[in-house]
Amino acid sequence: MAKQITIVGAGLVGSMLACYMSRRGHTVKVYERRPDMRKAGYIGGRSINLALSHRGIKALSKIGLYEKVEHIAIPMYGRMIHDVQGNTQLTPYGKEGQAIYSISRGDLNRIMVEEADKFPNVDFYFNERCTHIDFDTNTAQFENNESKNIATQKSDIIFGSDGAYSQVRYQMQTTPNFNIHQHHEPYGYKELHISPGPNGEHLMEKNALHIWPRGSFMLIALPNTDGSFTLTLFNNLEGENSFAELTDEKSVTAFFQKFFPDALALMPDLAQTFFKNPTSSLVTIRCYPWKYKNTCLIGDAAHAIVPFYGQGMNCGFEDVNELDDLLNQHHEDWEKTLYQFQTQRKPNADAILDLALHNYIEMRDLSGRKDFQLRTQIERRIAEAFPEKFMTHYSMVTFSDLSYHEAKMRGEKQNELLEAIMRLDNIEQQWQGDTVLKMAAEWLEKN
Amino acid sequence: MAKQITIVGAGLVGSMLACYMSRRGHTVKVYERRPDMRKAGYIGGRSINLALSHRGIKALSKIGLYEKVEHIAIPMYGRMIHDVQGNTQLTPYGKEGQAIYSISRGDLNRIMVEEADKFPNVDFYFNERCTHIDFDTNTAQFENNESKNIATQKSDIIFGSDGAYSQVRYQMQTTPNFNIHQHHEPYGYKELHISPGPNGEHLMEKNALHIWPRGSFMLIALPNTDGSFTLTLFNNLEGENSFAELTDEKSVTAFFQKFFPDALALMPDLAQTFFKNPTSSLVTIRCYPWKYKNTCLIGDAAHAIVPFYGQGMNCGFEDVNELDDLLNQHHEDWEKTLYQFQTQRKPNADAILDLALHNYIEMRDLSGRKDFQLRTQIERRIAEAFPEKFMTHYSMVTFSDLSYHEAKMRGEKQNELLEAIMRLDNIEQQWQGDTVLKMAAEWLEKN
Repeated sequence: MAKQITIVGAGLVGSMLACYMSRRGHTVKVYERRPDMRKAGYIGGRSINLALSHRGIKALSKIGLYEKVEHIAIPMYGRMIHDVQGNTQLTPYGKEGQAIYSISRGDLNRIMVEEADKFPNVDFYFNERCTHIDFDTNTAQFENNESKNIATQKSDIIFGSDGAYSQVRYQMQTTPNFNIHQHHEPYGYKELHISPGPNGEHLMEKNALHIWPRGSFMLIALPNTDGSFTLTLFNNLEGENSFAELTDEKSVTAFFQKFFPDALALMPDLAQTFFKNPTSSLVTIRCYPWKYKNTCLIGDAAHAIVPFYGQGMNCGFEDVNELDDLLNQHHEDWEKTLYQFQTQRKPNADAILDLALHNYIEMRDLSGRKDFQLRTQIERRIAEAFPEKFMTHYSMVTFSDLSYHEAKMRGEKQNELLEAIMRLDNIEQQWQGDTVLKMAAEWLEKN
Repeated sequence: MAKQITIVGAGLVGSMLACYMSRRGHTVKVYERRPDMRKAGYIGGRSINLALSHRGIKALSKIGLYEKVEHIAIPMYGRMIHDVQGNTQLTPYGKEGQAIYSISRGDLNRIMVEEADKFPNVDFYFNERCTHIDFDTNTAQFENNESKNIATQKSDIIFGSDGAYSQVRYQMQTTPNFNIHQHHEPYGYKELHISPGPNGEHLMEKNALHIWPRGSFMLIALPNTDGSFTLTLFNNLEGENSFAELTDEKSVTAFFQKFFPDALALMPDLAQTFFKNPTSSLVTIRCYPWKYKNTCLIGDAAHAIVPFYGQGMNCGFEDVNELDDLLNQHHEDWEKTLYQFQTQRKPNADAILDLALHNYIEMRDLSGRKDFQLRTQIERRIAEAFPEKFMTHYSMVTFSDLSYHEAKMRGEKQNELLEAIMRLDNIEQQWQGDTVLKMAAEWLEKN
């Protein structure tokens, strides 16, 4: 039976959810506190470029959306590591042809809202800030940012897809037995920019995610379709070499000269840009339950994570995809569906949250180390030798359908093997020899 | 210079803060979402009787409030442990004459509001629910529960003393870098009642806190001035013997018959009362920072704890007392005061939160065990032998001015000594002998 569904938040997950729900025949009303991005342009809270990968593409493809956005997605086949001298080294992310895709959050969001709005049973309301949820009557209240008028919307089901600082979740926080852990990391980020070359060309390798790993901090760069790169400096907020020490144009230039000379050479206006852009914080949200009566959190509202595994959006899109599967499985029994949705997704959300936190260490520190690079090569070699039995940890998360929880567990298990291999004498010399594959075969036999 | 101060929440901490601030000459407006308890009677969210002790009494006394409430405070000199056969054993809380005081939350709150309202520079507004804080302009917005009218109040300083589910904190949660951990315990509580005897007398020992420790659950009773007792059953929400198994009058009666036969004998209407009263949950709140711009959290809003150390209110009152000291110390420099308030109080709030969680185990389980009772006796014996150097852990928390943090650290340190003593051969026989005091003397020499 067709339901009245209210979606709070027209971001990536909210607009995808609108497409999925309207496709099922439900009547959908989407409320968004920001202005209509189709008119106003995108005013994002977080504008880090996104890395779209398998889970996200799968959810987009299922409803024919991927072909609408494919043209704005730039494949990145590997990590391009930049050392302090400006030498670069590419490590592929997966097998030949496998890539993650750099995509602009703003463009993607705009297209998804346009597509959702094509459904006759979807209505969007912008500039509408959620101010209250009455969980007993399934009524959401909104205040218009311009007119200050108050609107109420009664429906059968309410979704909170309103992001890390979800108003729906704040409302839910006052209901019995709601647990939440909202934690800001002691590091933050600042966006920077490399302009296109004179002929609109990319001034570094286009089809890679660039990383300048420097131990306690790092710079990354993702390509844009216009020939530019969006760069992000991730750094501690306090302490040696931290944001706290980057107080004027002189210190910023000296910092980049010392640690990122090749990037600095491509950013003539760095010192000015640096102080124009804010230093933003990074938050993680663990909470439970996600469902209260007929209201349910989804996406970042339920599980905001740090961006270091490139899985925030992909995880949110997978939420929607699995919700859709569960509605099929339970023949549109919403009570069963939402209950199973939260129990099934929660361990996966917890797993990717932990993996994302850990991946900061891998990106900013380990990825620049010789022993870690060797370990990655060995992991890839085993995966190639035993394609049916062994996947690299990165591939499990990024290129597979394994649940995040399963990927995390298997990754931890595989660590045992990789650590044993790394303890071999002269592993630097013999990693391409037979011993490594023999050890792997024995381990795979037992595990 | 006199400030305009808005206090959100006229509970125990809010009304005490109103007294303290008006006494300093500030203009104070207190907004409370509940009706005026002087007219409507107390409608509490949590009506567990309170145990007022040294820290709370000190803060009340400093502004002459203790003499106004002393007549409704019933001294409890120790724990009265009830075993399954109905045998009782009293363990004193402190030295001769030291007590904690059973006091009704409703009566105490009413008197404090009356006292605060006597100041000409204090105004109370009831039925006013805080709906928004504009941190940039120090403006709080309220909606009247009856008229639905919206009021705004601009001031110099805003305090959120609105309890565990603080609206001010929910607002603060959206500000940069606010961290919070809101956790509901897997156990809950239900209030029960023992009526006075035929002549208005208490049917059990009046001057004790009664405990029926049963391992994974417990019943407690605190005396009221009218001859009755308020009882609270604390129990797991799920599992063996939990609330989940107490589904009808028969199972409740059987449960009490098995575990609390002496209490059951005094509660002829138990089975009916049990299902009239709700099963409530217990929440802990850890958050930081408490101050954002000119708004500051205080009391439960900043650090809600479980009730097992009887320190929730005492800690909130100590907050107000220390804030007052800091205002003196910094000559009413509010920026410095609020900043130091949060940095100074946070470790103490964390400490009492942990101690309170741990004390549930002590009350429901350990307090009924012979070895723990012996350990308590030994601890008291050492404290009596070395009154200048050694305090029992309970006394540090309950009867001293030591910071909670210091009390927790010292308690952990003293554990080493007590555990070494408990490992002595035949400690049951020799605990009153010389060895124990010799070990204590040696340990005190080194620590």
